[in-house]
Amino acid sequence: MAQSTASKKAAKAKGKTGKNGKPEKAKNGKAGMSKTEPDKAEEAKPSKGRRPGPDKPAPDKSTAAKATKATKPEPTDAVEPDVYTADPVEVTREGAKDWSEPVGPLLRPGDGFDLATFDAGATPGWDGSEKDAERRMAALGEELSELQERLYAEGRSGGSRSVLLVLQGLDTSGKGGIARHVLGMVDPQGVALRSFGVPTLQEREHHFLWRIRNALPPTGRIGLFDRSHYEDVLVAVVDELAPPEELDARYGEINDFEAELAGSGTTIVKVALVISPQEQYDRLHERLERPDKHWKFSVGDLATRAKWPQYTQAYQRVFDRTSTEGAPWHVVPADNKWFSRLVVTELLTQALRDLNLGWPVADFDVDAARAALEETKDQGTTAS
Amino acid sequence: MAQSTASKKAAKAKGKTGKNGKPEKAKNGKAGMSKTEPDKAEEAKPSKGRRPGPDKPAPDKSTAAKATKATKPEPTDAVEPDVYTADPVEVTREGAKDWSEPVGPLLRPGDGFDLATFDAGATPGWDGSEKDAERRMAALGEELSELQERLYAEGRSGGSRSVLLVLQGLDTSGKGGIARHVLGMVDPQGVALRSFGVPTLQEREHHFLWRIRNALPPTGRIGLFDRSHYEDVLVAVVDELAPPEELDARYGEINDFEAELAGSGTTIVKVALVISPQEQYDRLHERLERPDKHWKFSVGDLATRAKWPQYTQAYQRVFDRTSTEGAPWHVVPADNKWFSRLVVTELLTQALRDLNLGWPVADFDVDAARAALEETKDQGTTAS
Repeated sequence: MAQSTASKKAAKAKGKTGKNGKPEKAKNGKAGMSKTEPDKAEEAKPSKGRRPGPDKPAPDKSTAAKATKATKPEPTDAVEPDVYTADPVEVTREGAKDWSEPVGPLLRPGDGFDLATFDAGATPGWDGSEKDAERRMAALGEELSELQERLYAEGRSGGSRSVLLVLQGLDTSGKGGIARHVLGMVDPQGVALRSFGVPTLQEREHHFLWRIRNALPPTGRIGLFDRSHYEDVLVAVVDELAPPEELDARYGEINDFEAELAGSGTTIVKVALVISPQEQYDRLHERLERPDKHWKFSVGDLATRAKWPQYTQAYQRVFDRTSTEGAPWHVVPADNKWFSRLVVTELLTQALRDLNLGWPVADFDVDAARAALEETKDQGTTAS
Repeated sequence: MAQSTASKKAAKAKGKTGKNGKPEKAKNGKAGMSKTEPDKAEEAKPSKGRRPGPDKPAPDKSTAAKATKATKPEPTDAVEPDVYTADPVEVTREGAKDWSEPVGPLLRPGDGFDLATFDAGATPGWDGSEKDAERRMAALGEELSELQERLYAEGRSGGSRSVLLVLQGLDTSGKGGIARHVLGMVDPQGVALRSFGVPTLQEREHHFLWRIRNALPPTGRIGLFDRSHYEDVLVAVVDELAPPEELDARYGEINDFEAELAGSGTTIVKVALVISPQEQYDRLHERLERPDKHWKFSVGDLATRAKWPQYTQAYQRVFDRTSTEGAPWHVVPADNKWFSRLVVTELLTQALRDLNLGWPVADFDVDAARAALEETKDQGTTAS
């Protein structure tokens, strides 16, 4: 860990060499940023206008099912602060093997996609080894880490963007491992994890999206939903937990909801981890054989497993009806954990890259602050 | 990152070799654990009684100031589930240098402790190099990571314990770096980070501990408070934000509150990061010189810096009045970031070690579950 931290630092220092020159002239003299420091009661929050990307098309909010080629959701109401640079993060990629084909589009369920014949043991787009995948993960981790910091910085400086990874998959498909091994690569201050279980009594008294809205990642964060609103069209459909017409309406409600999120600055990355029945058997078996894994096992897992065909159907319908242009699904073969983790890291990094994040321009007078700091140079020293 | 993950796995597999034998007989046949899986609506939560440690003394709730030798807070109402093993985590420590003296007691402010003459550049108890410290961090990280998983497992199985790291320090003292580099070593699902800024209007309408209670880590988690209720006896004292008698009463209220927390199963680790005025100057200077760090700077930092002697006094009083036996302060020299990070990792790992965490005993019939799983061995395969 220490080694990887050290190498990260080195890469970072290197990447920043070109940026340490004279900063841009501060654009106003307002004191205070949107930092929440207890000792700063008066904060002048700059009001920044909408700044849409110059060359990007307006978002297509159509909820076309089976979008084969999805475009990124384009924030419409999202606020992006002024940035002084949007240079890509420089990362050393020596020895890091690349995909034979961009993995994002490859895993989006297009026309004729059939989950029942999906190969959960495949590694589409990747002809490297597991070792190659680990090396690429490490390189991506560095990049992801800096991109996350830029996103966080933007969020603290008046921006309104965030990234939300929606993770679905049957028991043992590796959702927890994604949280640990992918999100674990970035600063925990910048991530917001939420997992969704059986709705509580209170949650059941509300619309199914109520608890989801309450759990959205704060601005500037990478959120992860371990299960999500899709449970309301998965377990709810399989176990018929609502009237058919209500269930049927949910797909459209979800599409509208996700379009709304995209419009307010949240990039949604949807991932379904798909394992084979045999692989699930093996993983459940291990949980039963190892006493240190018993706590992860639930007898309910077997009941769910018994409904494999029904879940396959329910997932198929989810892909058919909610893989939109703005928020496409990625159906990820997950029998190989190293592969699914690499894929999610890749998708997440790409999503952040697409935000063209820079560092926020100071909203205070940098020269004045420098002068004021110089005046205090010996102040503390003499006092203590 | 991938490398360190791999080595972690190897160490873990090694550590578990001895545990993969026959599991203990399940103690009851109840279905379901306290996992929150959406597909398990009916969950029989075992009601487990209080199980205090056998040889441990009752907690001393006295709020003796300047405790030179503090004992761990002993949970009184805390629930510990049955565990099948409380073996220490096995970690390879080859080449990992040890402390010349246990660092915990060394950093507790005892009689005659004087913050004004404290050496923020020292590395007490550590005569190794920075490189040695990194190696030890890595080894501790592995241990911390497994201990965190045990704590989480316990929390999901009816336990009621958690660990709360309370982090205080002036601007630039490295609180964020602790979150990133120390808490970043464990599964993000197991940590709960909260930072406290200027109280909101709503928060100001409540008792100062109200927002703190609302932010306590859930059972089974490692919580981190980046600033905390201590702001209410730091900035509040320096800036006289409340009447003197109200401020004066807060120390006792804090001690009572923390004793209550300990009693309900929360181990509190209190850390104050102390930097020198010169070091703060350097760090603020860097934030002003590097455009990619401007977002971290706030003009308010200079106002706080100007009150260095007042903050020194306020911190001194905090140590004098709230370093209790159950929740002692650790005053950590923080001019060397590598040192303060190592110290916090050490303190956190020790706190978790002291919980004697094992893996929860299954609260379902393991043999019956095995048999049920076998029956479904080909079920899914034929279905898809």
